Amino acid sequence: MHPDERIDQLYGQTVKIIQSDEVFSFSLDAVLLADFTRISRRSKAVDLCAGNGAVALFLSQKTSGPINLVEIQSRLADMAARSVQLNHLEDRLHVYPIDLKDAPQTLKKDAYDVVTCNPPYFADQPHSQKNPNPYLAIARHELKTDLNTVLATTSALLKTNGRASFVYRPDRFLEMCQKMVANRLIPKRIRFVYPFQNKDANMFLIEAIKDGKPGGLHLEAPLVVYDAPNQYTPEVQRLIYGD
Amino acid sequence: MHPDERIDQLYGQTVKIIQSDEVFSFSLDAVLLADFTRISRRSKAVDLCAGNGAVALFLSQKTSGPINLVEIQSRLADMAARSVQLNHLEDRLHVYPIDLKDAPQTLKKDAYDVVTCNPPYFADQPHSQKNPNPYLAIARHELKTDLNTVLATTSALLKTNGRASFVYRPDRFLEMCQKMVANRLIPKRIRFVYPFQNKDANMFLIEAIKDGKPGGLHLEAPLVVYDAPNQYTPEVQRLIYGD
Repeated sequence: MHPDERIDQLYGQTVKIIQSDEVFSFSLDAVLLADFTRISRRSKAVDLCAGNGAVALFLSQKTSGPINLVEIQSRLADMAARSVQLNHLEDRLHVYPIDLKDAPQTLKKDAYDVVTCNPPYFADQPHSQKNPNPYLAIARHELKTDLNTVLATTSALLKTNGRASFVYRPDRFLEMCQKMVANRLIPKRIRFVYPFQNKDANMFLIEAIKDGKPGGLHLEAPLVVYDAPNQYTPEVQRLIYGD
Repeated sequence: MHPDERIDQLYGQTVKIIQSDEVFSFSLDAVLLADFTRISRRSKAVDLCAGNGAVALFLSQKTSGPINLVEIQSRLADMAARSVQLNHLEDRLHVYPIDLKDAPQTLKKDAYDVVTCNPPYFADQPHSQKNPNPYLAIARHELKTDLNTVLATTSALLKTNGRASFVYRPDRFLEMCQKMVANRLIPKRIRFVYPFQNKDANMFLIEAIKDGKPGGLHLEAPLVVYDAPNQYTPEVQRLIYGD
């Protein structure tokens, strides 16, 4: 363990995750994405922009199949690999410290049932303010990749009828839908996440099917995070603290 | 009044509306669309697919400006015109019993601040089952118009920066967004309507700005209709029964 690291465990989960506020800690996005993702016991999965592995570690509890983690930042990929060891999941979870655009070659094309991703949310605008911490800047801003590259990679990795499962921000919602379709990923389920019942959504979860037929879109029940300040709703409590 | 007609009044509203279950009665869609629509005191507005005039009559209480109602079915346009008289709104509300595609010529191009529309929801598929009542079939199915024609007409009527305000169904959500953008209408606000807190959305409200800049989309707080069977939530109760 590095001096800045700690081990976190969600009460509702058995997996332990190595975290560091200096380089990367998972947040609610990862918990919600893993919960939203439909994955069967034998699915082959890839998690892109894997960070410290939180999404894949949570997902590992929903499937018995293999999950490949792709993370460009070697410091984070190393944290993820150590969390995989800590949970004795080395036989199923494999960490690739590579640029995701190389993932279809390094792994395999048209081969996966599920691809999950919690990509950087912010476009790299020349004058946009970025986090001075380079680890966090890369995780949040499109410095090393961009949405279209992430979606093209997702599409290349997935089998026909494979599922892409993403978490993203409302400001770029239409762009996400457009670029998914342009990459043969047809949205089928969307769930909007609202911080409070009476506030605008600040996140959404979206599932698309590779080469799916258009139409038949489900907009799932709203996911509301807080009932009152610092008071999670029962649904989110269950995800974090268990039943 | 025709034998099948009655006069309805929402408790929270002063306007009276001539209704007929045999040809057309407004439903919650119209109430929600009028509530969602932003309109200033002096706005010039057009309501397309006006039916018996419910949306325009509700809207008339939020503005002092003129509203033109466009309805292709002369029987419904006649009901709307009589409701306008009943409410003494003849100086501001004008009913045009015309095909909406002729509205930019009959009315005026690039001239309106707001266009509202509750269009037919169902594509006219050759084998789709339609309501045997022709009035209802035309109101619900794309027999006399289609989404692209409605949006092209909306765009032609609106000034630059004018607002289009629509209610529609989730199944065609992505199609609505795509076709809006193709008609220079850039979505800016969307509100999803859920029958119950834990159910999929069954309606959405969308506002687009003509020639608006892309981005800056707001996904507004969820609108939940029922707390329990036949029990409206407080927000919907306020809309229907007033404060």
